[in-house]
Amino acid sequence: MEQKLSTNVSRTIQTKLVLPPDTNHMGTIFGGKILALIDEIAAIAAMKHSKTAVVTASIDKVNFRSSVKLGDILTIEGFVISTGRTSMEVYVKVECEHIETGERRLTTDSFLTMVAIDSNNIPTAVPGVIPETAEEQELYKQAQERRAQRQA
Amino acid sequence: MEQKLSTNVSRTIQTKLVLPPDTNHMGTIFGGKILALIDEIAAIAAMKHSKTAVVTASIDKVNFRSSVKLGDILTIEGFVISTGRTSMEVYVKVECEHIETGERRLTTDSFLTMVAIDSNNIPTAVPGVIPETAEEQELYKQAQERRAQRQA
Amino acid sequence: MEQKLSTNVSRTIQTKLVLPPDTNHMGTIFGGKILALIDEIAAIAAMKHSKTAVVTASIDKVNFRSSVKLGDILTIEGFVISTGRTSMEVYVKVECEHIETGERRLTTDSFLTMVAIDSNNIPTAVPGVIPETAEEQELYKQAQERRAQRQA
Amino acid sequence: MEQKLSTNVSRTIQTKLVLPPDTNHMGTIFGGKILALIDEIAAIAAMKHSKTAVVTASIDKVNFRSSVKLGDILTIEGFVISTGRTSMEVYVKVECEHIETGERRLTTDSFLTMVAIDSNNIPTAVPGVIPETAEEQELYKQAQERRAQRQA
Amino acid sequence: MEQKLSTNVSRTIQTKLVLPPDTNHMGTIFGGKILALIDEIAAIAAMKHSKTAVVTASIDKVNFRSSVKLGDILTIEGFVISTGRTSMEVYVKVECEHIETGERRLTTDSFLTMVAIDSNNIPTAVPGVIPETAEEQELYKQAQERRAQRQA
Amino acid sequence: MEQKLSTNVSRTIQTKLVLPPDTNHMGTIFGGKILALIDEIAAIAAMKHSKTAVVTASIDKVNFRSSVKLGDILTIEGFVISTGRTSMEVYVKVECEHIETGERRLTTDSFLTMVAIDSNNIPTAVPGVIPETAEEQELYKQAQERRAQRQA
Ligand SMILES: CC(C)(COP(=O)(O)OP(=O)(O)OC[C@H]1O[C@@H](n2cnc3c(N)ncnc32)[C@H](O)[C@@H]1OP(=O)(O)O)[C@@H](O)C(=O)NCCC(=O)NCCS
Ligand SMILES: CC(C)(COP(=O)(O)OP(=O)(O)OC[C@H]1O[C@@H](n2cnc3c(N)ncnc32)[C@H](O)[C@@H]1OP(=O)(O)O)[C@@H](O)C(=O)NCCC(=O)NCCS
Ligand SMILES: CC(C)(COP(=O)(O)OP(=O)(O)OC[C@H]1O[C@@H](n2cnc3c(N)ncnc32)[C@H](O)[C@@H]1OP(=O)(O)O)[C@@H](O)C(=O)NCCC(=O)NCCS
Ligand SMILES: CC(C)(COP(=O)(O)OP(=O)(O)OC[C@H]1O[C@@H](n2cnc3c(N)ncnc32)[C@H](O)[C@@H]1OP(=O)(O)O)[C@@H](O)C(=O)NCCC(=O)NCCS
Repeated sequence: MEQKLSTNVSRTIQTKLVLPPDTNHMGTIFGGKILALIDEIAAIAAMKHSKTAVVTASIDKVNFRSSVKLGDILTIEGFVISTGRTSMEVYVKVECEHIETGERRLTTDSFLTMVAIDSNNIPTAVPGVIPETAEEQELYKQAQERRAQRQA
Repeated sequence: MEQKLSTNVSRTIQTKLVLPPDTNHMGTIFGGKILALIDEIAAIAAMKHSKTAVVTASIDKVNFRSSVKLGDILTIEGFVISTGRTSMEVYVKVECEHIETGERRLTTDSFLTMVAIDSNNIPTAVPGVIPETAEEQELYKQAQERRAQRQA
Repeated sequence: MEQKLSTNVSRTIQTKLVLPPDTNHMGTIFGGKILALIDEIAAIAAMKHSKTAVVTASIDKVNFRSSVKLGDILTIEGFVISTGRTSMEVYVKVECEHIETGERRLTTDSFLTMVAIDSNNIPTAVPGVIPETAEEQELYKQAQERRAQRQA
Repeated sequence: MEQKLSTNVSRTIQTKLVLPPDTNHMGTIFGGKILALIDEIAAIAAMKHSKTAVVTASIDKVNFRSSVKLGDILTIEGFVISTGRTSMEVYVKVECEHIETGERRLTTDSFLTMVAIDSNNIPTAVPGVIPETAEEQELYKQAQERRAQRQA
Repeated sequence: MEQKLSTNVSRTIQTKLVLPPDTNHMGTIFGGKILALIDEIAAIAAMKHSKTAVVTASIDKVNFRSSVKLGDILTIEGFVISTGRTSMEVYVKVECEHIETGERRLTTDSFLTMVAIDSNNIPTAVPGVIPETAEEQELYKQAQERRAQRQA
Repeated sequence: MEQKLSTNVSRTIQTKLVLPPDTNHMGTIFGGKILALIDEIAAIAAMKHSKTAVVTASIDKVNFRSSVKLGDILTIEGFVISTGRTSMEVYVKVECEHIETGERRLTTDSFLTMVAIDSNNIPTAVPGVIPETAEEQELYKQAQERRAQRQA
């Protein structure tokens, strides 16, 4: 598949208010809740890029850098940053905003590998990707390295 | 409160994959599900603008123009378009993308009035707003008219 | 379709205890949650009247008159109040009861237009309606006026 | 507490459309989902009667007589039918309506014992009950017998 | 069906942290939530035993012996304890652990009757059961008695 | 803290039937749903070991080896396998059973780092761990290595 698509095609944003069902009895969000949001954004980004259904093949190590509280606002952003024949590497970044102070912090970021599948659940080829911003070009360059490390 | 904030401060985007719990037994999304998403985005936009808690005072008439199916991707975008002393008028637009065709349609749009409240639940003053794009300036100009119509 | 059905055929009541997942971090219910309940009741009322599946075509302006708290009891009541060829106008009223005082207040009311659809999603004809109580007869008489205002 | 309240004070009705999250992969509702609805109605009925918070002390044997499918409409009705010093016996009946045929069947019914509690979680006295309809008077008369059987 | 299966085939365990959506506004779990968990475990145990889909035919009387709070850990265990031709009697036990004290208490236990069904929803024969522990052998012996009592 | 606890103290098992809300429109479970389950089990295991509240610090790379379908039964098992001063490394294994064939496969496994916190959200010391089975002793031995790799 010769065609290449800009990262803008797959870029996906979700803004979410942290509510009681997302948190434990001390008002702190569950790690698992954030992982579920990351996977949802990665799936949408990969679907937009491939125009097919997708499955999650793997998620790289995730570090939770700072806690997120009831009433905070999460912004989750993801886009396809590199591709194989049928797989797409998606970068997802989660930021947290405290509403009264307006303070914004990186909660976590991660790379996921999503695979495009056809209606028989067989992996199917995907277009390549053209990184746009400087940050994206940097992430794009390092893709080969991450791929090697994943297979180690 | 003299300060005025750009619509960019409150602009809030949510992208959502339509899943089985959102739909009826025919795979069509419930109108109520879309109304809940619209209210969530409006609340986040108003919180970002006012840096306070908010309540929904009203939502204007909503027309559902085209149906949304299981597996479609919804993009909901909202921002504060005009303000009173304690109230904020938020414009929310819902678009639906069919993943295989990439076709994108307006599902609905609506205006909501959100009121900023302090920790005693008393309405509290909010900053004004500076519309950015041409579309926003147009919506901003018509705010007075909509306000009059609401009180009719 | 000559047949006409009493409002009692479609009358639908739901009583709901307001629980943590329905509310924000201050224990106040979300407007969106109430909108979702209104739409659910309107859909059930319209299904009972038409004996078909239905979709929400529109919801008129909704004013939230008083707030609803964790532990309150909501009573939502809806019935088909007037009909077109394939559309049904449903009136829904939401009342809130504070359990310890027994005090009961109108939270909001609204009119929705539901359209009966067949198994190919094509609008299909519905029976007419016979209002029963004085309140219903009043609402029935004003239906023409509301319809005109909607198309304005 | 000399005061006695009519069954109309506690009578609580909920109408619910059976949706995908309520059912298994064959479109049949889970027994557990119906049990949860029965307990919710019983709690609301007991709260309306006692004007206090309540806890579920027990639920009598429940037989599921006929299955309930995706798209069916459930009507759950409950009221306090007899009282002890701090406990209330609530009768709950679940009926199922198939929308296209309008056919209505008894799905199940059950008796629950709810206990009124004060803010320290201590059982607290409740008003007595006055049955209204013939069916209620019959159920009221048999309360003593059911109570004996429960303690057997 | 001559074959008999050990209770170990069906034994099913679920450990659950009690979270805000499971509880009322006083932080106490709903009886209905526990009933739903019991039914879920019973269905899984019966599916493992019969290798078919199952429906809940009935649940015996449930007494809630002690309350369960936000942040507690529930352990629910179930297994098939006796069988008829197409029905399986499942015993389910719910224990609650308070995390800081490590104190563990019986919350409730119950017997459910699950019926194996084929793809046309017709009851279908199930294997017999071989109880393993002394407790299970005791429960197995009393099955006939419980069955008689159920039909009384 | 000199005390050491067996892996049996923290061992936590959850059995779950895959239901419509867990899956996409093709009946395949979301990766994010499994990640949320893994985090929930890890949190419970760590709470049982530390007798305190815990937060998720990180989750190592997760590979999804085989897909999980609507109606499958998931068994998730976790236990604390090694400890630092305030952190606990939890190993979680997810297996999937297809009900009709009884076939059981490893879906995924992962290591998470959970940190014990006191009521001021300050990390607090945890007991050591004593591995029981051969598999656990092997995992215990490799803990140092995994720790080094995480910091690389
Ligand atoms: C919205 C609410 C706070 C207004 O209270 P109030 O006593 O009317 O307060 P005020 O008269 O000071 O009005 C505050 C602002 O709200 C606006 N407002 C009040 N009712 C409104 C309505 N139905 N539609 C639009 N704006 C409204 C007023 O115009 C005023 O705006 P301004 O300060 O910009 O001029 C009150 O009605 C309320 O609490 N409603 C319930 C809100 C809620 O909980 N919603 C969720 C679901 S119930
Ligand atoms: C509602 C819908 C079926 C109408 O389709 P349409 O092509 O306009 O069909 P018709 O012109 O035959 O109109 C059918 C009826 O709907 C009414 N109608 C259409 N749009 C309406 C609106 N915005 N408000 C009120 N009534 C409306 C028409 O007046 C007509 O009524 P009548 O038969 O009683 O005279 C269509 O717009 C739709 O599918 N919308 C999405 C519905 C949905 O899925 N809602 C859930 C959330 S997206
Ligand atoms: C129900 C509960 C409050 C009773 O506590 P208790 O110490 O037995 O209190 P008392 O002896 O004062 O009994 C209070 C009333 O409950 C009744 N009661 C107690 N256990 C009962 C049972 N299993 N079934 C029916 N009624 C019961 C008593 O008969 C008494 O009724 P009365 O005042 O009308 O004569 C207590 O067992 C409890 O908290 N259980 C958990 C309730 C809960 O949280 N349920 C949700 C799921 S766990
Ligand atoms: C359970 C059900 C399949 C039984 O149907 P039926 O026509 O009575 O079938 P049968 O007479 O062949 O009985 C099948 C088995 O169920 C048992 N059974 C039937 N009703 C029962 C009850 N209320 N309690 C316990 N066992 C019962 C019978 O004893 C028989 O057992 P056996 O084969 O081991 O001897 C039927 O009542 C049903 O579909 N109920 C709804 C189940 C459901 O959907 N539950 C979820 C919530 S509604």
